[in-house]
Amino acid sequence: MQLIRNPARQEWPSILARPVLDNAALLAQVGEVLDDIRKSGDVALGKYIIKFDGEIQGDLRVSASSIVQAGDELDIELKQAIDVAFNNISRFHTAQQELVQPIETTAGVVCWRKSLPISRVGLYIPGGSAPLFSTVLMLGIPAMLAGCKEVVICTPAGKDGTIHPAILYAAGKVGIQEIYRIGGAQAIAAMASGTSTIAKVDKIFGPGNQYVTAAKQLVQMQGVAIDMPAGPSEVCVLADETANPAFIAADLLSQAEHGPDSQVLLVTNNASIINDTNIALETQLQQLGRKSIAELALQNSKAILVANMDEAMDMVNAYAAEHLIIASTQYEKYMDKVEHAGSVFLGNLTPESAGDYASGTNHTLPTNGYARAYSGVSLDSFVKKVTFQHINESGIRNLGPAIITMAQAEGLDAHANAVKIRLNQ
Amino acid sequence: MQLIRNPARQEWPSILARPVLDNAALLAQVGEVLDDIRKSGDVALGKYIIKFDGEIQGDLRVSASSIVQAGDELDIELKQAIDVAFNNISRFHTAQQELVQPIETTAGVVCWRKSLPISRVGLYIPGGSAPLFSTVLMLGIPAMLAGCKEVVICTPAGKDGTIHPAILYAAGKVGIQEIYRIGGAQAIAAMASGTSTIAKVDKIFGPGNQYVTAAKQLVQMQGVAIDMPAGPSEVCVLADETANPAFIAADLLSQAEHGPDSQVLLVTNNASIINDTNIALETQLQQLGRKSIAELALQNSKAILVANMDEAMDMVNAYAAEHLIIASTQYEKYMDKVEHAGSVFLGNLTPESAGDYASGTNHTLPTNGYARAYSGVSLDSFVKKVTFQHINESGIRNLGPAIITMAQAEGLDAHANAVKIRLNQ
Repeated sequence: MQLIRNPARQEWPSILARPVLDNAALLAQVGEVLDDIRKSGDVALGKYIIKFDGEIQGDLRVSASSIVQAGDELDIELKQAIDVAFNNISRFHTAQQELVQPIETTAGVVCWRKSLPISRVGLYIPGGSAPLFSTVLMLGIPAMLAGCKEVVICTPAGKDGTIHPAILYAAGKVGIQEIYRIGGAQAIAAMASGTSTIAKVDKIFGPGNQYVTAAKQLVQMQGVAIDMPAGPSEVCVLADETANPAFIAADLLSQAEHGPDSQVLLVTNNASIINDTNIALETQLQQLGRKSIAELALQNSKAILVANMDEAMDMVNAYAAEHLIIASTQYEKYMDKVEHAGSVFLGNLTPESAGDYASGTNHTLPTNGYARAYSGVSLDSFVKKVTFQHINESGIRNLGPAIITMAQAEGLDAHANAVKIRLNQ
Repeated sequence: MQLIRNPARQEWPSILARPVLDNAALLAQVGEVLDDIRKSGDVALGKYIIKFDGEIQGDLRVSASSIVQAGDELDIELKQAIDVAFNNISRFHTAQQELVQPIETTAGVVCWRKSLPISRVGLYIPGGSAPLFSTVLMLGIPAMLAGCKEVVICTPAGKDGTIHPAILYAAGKVGIQEIYRIGGAQAIAAMASGTSTIAKVDKIFGPGNQYVTAAKQLVQMQGVAIDMPAGPSEVCVLADETANPAFIAADLLSQAEHGPDSQVLLVTNNASIINDTNIALETQLQQLGRKSIAELALQNSKAILVANMDEAMDMVNAYAAEHLIIASTQYEKYMDKVEHAGSVFLGNLTPESAGDYASGTNHTLPTNGYARAYSGVSLDSFVKKVTFQHINESGIRNLGPAIITMAQAEGLDAHANAVKIRLNQ
């Protein structure tokens, strides 16, 4: 890790800056895929699958029997772990359901809002090196709880043309029956504009590589909603002298193993914590299957020593991390000072991986500083909150004059008239 | 209005389609403004203000005394009406505050979420023909209730270089002190990237013309959040035989007067309702100040006769209107069948203008079919919902094995190790 000691405040922005990608060329390239699939549907979709993934093996849609049978191919231990995660994620997201609460704002004027499910949503589940069945749970469970009528998964098949059974098992658990073996920008394009194979969705969720991310950005401009913009995953550990350096090292590595572009940051007021964490990193790194990836990520990561914990807190807020670990037995002193973060992990026994998999919170979170303005995925992401209102005779008499006055002051006669005509009757 | 009788279902999509704009040229033009202001700050901002608005008259920032004194220039009646609206909107949006609700998902594992304000938000208030002080309330009140630290308004000045006192009075009421006399795409650009005059914001809200809308779409791709994509305003009236045609006509006109591109739709199972509404439209149209605008909008609007109210409901859901008026004494029969809408107005005495101004619900709503996937503005729009979790010793013992199993199945050793190292201690 790069050690940075007591940086001046004016240096903070450059120290905390995320890598900026010039993706104009990428957007142009992906834009062509989107245009082509919008115009030519399945013909273009097939063309890009062959171009990017080799050949199309059999049906793009996964058979119902494969989904049902997937559980048989999994270890009982993994099935039980998925069940534990399913229960916790369900419990946490169920508590996000909003009750309908009518408010009489003026006598005779009653307003409320009601959550209505988004009808048809698409979940993109990346393939590549790992079968991300945890993301199926994190997106599929709130979709199920929200009552989305149709939930679709697109995920690239492995080299043998199959989808990992853990993905299919997790999909089955959340009631998803419509799964396509399609990956990349072409999957986003197909879900966004619809083809004969796969009907258009209203909103697209899920992580992906730079092509998938660019495609999501572009389809958002064409009216398809997306969960949030995405960048490389990141963790920031805020530590004081009560932290455990071995635990910090383990948490930093669990971020670093995601990819060479993972953002890893340690902020503390204590020089020994940095020193001891570095020693622990050396030891723990040797034991990792993804050692070479984690090593690359660590080269770009930073350990920042600041004068005191107030300054540390300011820095953490300036960074607005996707994952913020407050590694301290005194976490209660710090937690109310968090202003921007995707998800916060409190105390020495709360690793980020708990939230990644099984504690109940969602792991789809804002990266790249987007935590300043965006929330992570929740039940809210799968509904629209629609307002309703009813006005009775006394209500229109009580409220009508104010509406008329305001409408006339804005020069909108017909708005005023819609009230007058009711008052006059 | 165009009369459409009993259209076949396969014709619905073309009947209900919104106008599609090819805005590639517009996006390119606006993109230049954004790039220029990002690179050259105030110099470029000044250049575009002179280019698009003529000259820069005095300070761009409105003085504190102008805001304080604005109330003196308003009629007492208008001030009282604004106060009524302020109270109702505050009441409705206060009820949207979410309580922190800790959930023990597994023994020893406690998770909750907490709403944190977005620090600095920018509100765009259009100028042009009408001073939209109602939009200042609709955006400023939830920003105030959310606890946003800094709220900025950009709004174009009138020809005399001043801002309408009703806008300043409304801003003062919601505690906004930072107001700039800047309009158009250059205002969005300045708020999105920041200049010496106006610091960067985290999220941009508010309606605007096609340049403003294009600028918001583009800055969203560069990481600045926006409230929602926008299109022309629209109303759909669902009526049965218990509706009042004069009221329907008044509501259709209150939409039509917004602009020639306003979308106006009447769906009913009753031919006399259409006939009588057309007669009422003729009479009421003559009395309007904005008659010529409303007339143009009506030429593109549609009255659709369907076989029965079930079919009417299906059509209304297929349209996904920004404003849906259920013009019927039997509105309770229909309201639970609404699947997509921005805001719903129930019964014969509930005009859309109530929600536009003063009933309490927000008037910033999804247009253009976006109601399928987007909510209107609410308190939620001004906060991030951040998840927190704390795990104790028994918690990590209870949950740890499931995390380890899942992480290993995804091939992420370091994620598993972050738990193992805690269990081993």
